[in-house]
Amino acid sequence: MEFQQAVTEFIPQIETELKQHLMPATGEPDLFWGMMLYHMGWRDAQLQPVQAPAGKRLRPVFTMLACLAENGEPAGALPAAAAVELLHNFTLIHDDIQDNSDTRRGRPTVWKLWGIPQAINVGDAMFTVARNALLRLRETGVSAETVLDAIACLDRTLLTLCRGQYLDMSFETTLSVTVETYLEMIAGKTAALLACSGYLGALIASGSGAVAEQYWQFGHALGMAFQIQDDILGIWGDSAVVGKPIGDDLRQHKKTMPVVFALNQPETDDTRRFRDIYRQPKLTDDMVAEAITILERIGAKNHTESEAKRYTRRAQHLLDTIGKNSDAKEALQGMLSFLLARTY
Amino acid sequence: MEFQQAVTEFIPQIETELKQHLMPATGEPDLFWGMMLYHMGWRDAQLQPVQAPAGKRLRPVFTMLACLAENGEPAGALPAAAAVELLHNFTLIHDDIQDNSDTRRGRPTVWKLWGIPQAINVGDAMFTVARNALLRLRETGVSAETVLDAIACLDRTLLTLCRGQYLDMSFETTLSVTVETYLEMIAGKTAALLACSGYLGALIASGSGAVAEQYWQFGHALGMAFQIQDDILGIWGDSAVVGKPIGDDLRQHKKTMPVVFALNQPETDDTRRFRDIYRQPKLTDDMVAEAITILERIGAKNHTESEAKRYTRRAQHLLDTIGKNSDAKEALQGMLSFLLARTY
Repeated sequence: MEFQQAVTEFIPQIETELKQHLMPATGEPDLFWGMMLYHMGWRDAQLQPVQAPAGKRLRPVFTMLACLAENGEPAGALPAAAAVELLHNFTLIHDDIQDNSDTRRGRPTVWKLWGIPQAINVGDAMFTVARNALLRLRETGVSAETVLDAIACLDRTLLTLCRGQYLDMSFETTLSVTVETYLEMIAGKTAALLACSGYLGALIASGSGAVAEQYWQFGHALGMAFQIQDDILGIWGDSAVVGKPIGDDLRQHKKTMPVVFALNQPETDDTRRFRDIYRQPKLTDDMVAEAITILERIGAKNHTESEAKRYTRRAQHLLDTIGKNSDAKEALQGMLSFLLARTY
Repeated sequence: MEFQQAVTEFIPQIETELKQHLMPATGEPDLFWGMMLYHMGWRDAQLQPVQAPAGKRLRPVFTMLACLAENGEPAGALPAAAAVELLHNFTLIHDDIQDNSDTRRGRPTVWKLWGIPQAINVGDAMFTVARNALLRLRETGVSAETVLDAIACLDRTLLTLCRGQYLDMSFETTLSVTVETYLEMIAGKTAALLACSGYLGALIASGSGAVAEQYWQFGHALGMAFQIQDDILGIWGDSAVVGKPIGDDLRQHKKTMPVVFALNQPETDDTRRFRDIYRQPKLTDDMVAEAITILERIGAKNHTESEAKRYTRRAQHLLDTIGKNSDAKEALQGMLSFLLARTY
């Protein structure tokens, strides 16, 4: 099965499941539910039905493919698929406040429309709905022990996510970021939820934490490779493809892998100059160009590319060792290529 | 057993359990954990150990008493006791941002010290730790099915809490608040978590959702009575006892029960004048005095007092019908008197 075929097949089921968790038991949604529905792209700011651009629903599709790969019935994993997607969206609602972002997917963010206090609460509510979604697994025939295992995985993921977010925000005010802390940050912010998405699907099919752990590892490597590749694209990416100007991550003073590599090199004229540039509150185009040249000269680009390749190979190796269902394996291979095809 | 004796006996165990959930697995807490420990009153702003004023830990004590009342071993309920206390504290961290409060228990709030973005994340992390605490019930010998029942109860409570918070914030910008919506708001903000605290303790001892439901009802009535009484004290309370000046809730334009009663009365000179006063951005002492007189004249005070008495009687009646252990029953009776003794 092609990955896109899996996406086409699973997304309508996922949307139905998501709506089941995000609607009040009876009656029309009021503003409390309406703000969540707005964020999901199903209502406009006046709470009228609309089809606004939603996310790619990549994580829930992964959950269902992992379930199928272990010869489970994908529909049985729907509550878990909904849980990871809702969790992802809860973090976006709070992220938008934390990053002071006015728009998401071309629409005003929740806090921009309804204020920070309500938006904090909308995120909290969606967090609750996300975790609660897992309890519906009992209805699809999953044992109580396995549901508890799923809940424990989601909790570990959440705490790792919060810690990643904490580190990311801490990085904004310092140049002292070690490679180790950088890796912990992206493991929390990007890899953990992808890993959890695979874990839950495989767990539901197999009932085995050990089998599920292999999908965790695969999802984790995939997430790390994706994020490091994203770091490269954020500096060297083709602006027509990436949708932001060359060097944009540098202009925003982001502590991405090439930058963290540079900040941790022994002092030379190049690294000293790089730190000086990164200390400027506002970077000119010339500074950005110079910083890029330095990153290339000191091997930061090469190092980052080889790290991305290393995680990509690890993800590929892990994928080769898992999965009983060949249809699902083919689709998972397609997902890996889709996520990591942009440069490798 | 006297209520205070139960408090004295249980609190050290509760503190130990709380710390177990709020410390990193190894090493000294860094700022991520440190901000949570600061909020709990165990660390100062430099993360040095300190004993700052903490909350009353009323909810976790109730959880342990409910467990004992059903002849359970209170220590077995400790993970649930920790969960309700952590949940309460998560809501306080977010509340302080939402209410723009600079201090709590005489110390700067988390957002005041570390900024809103980090404080949102600290709340999210404590939310996660709270729910995760319930999973430790498996270690104290609770069945998987019962743990899932406990988790479902906590989730229902959380959603009710978020909805109560949503309503409370919505009330700030309108005079159109019905009595029904007001009751839903205080049920969410005050009664639900107290109800949940009783439910969990009784559930762990009895393994029966039906038995636990009786403690939910008792805790709910207790919470409603407490909040309505608090509404009375916020306007008519002795300032020396309540710690804030007479009429303070009016000055803050709070939509408490006497006010909501007044806003929903048929139009008369009194009710028109009351609405006029409540529309003023800033209330003078004379306006406050006049508003109080109107509330008394139109029966808003009497009505609120009789509602508080009605919920108090209901709580008492429910308490009379539950509990197998006489020691615990005595302590629960003491708790009811402690919470509701201030006027009745």
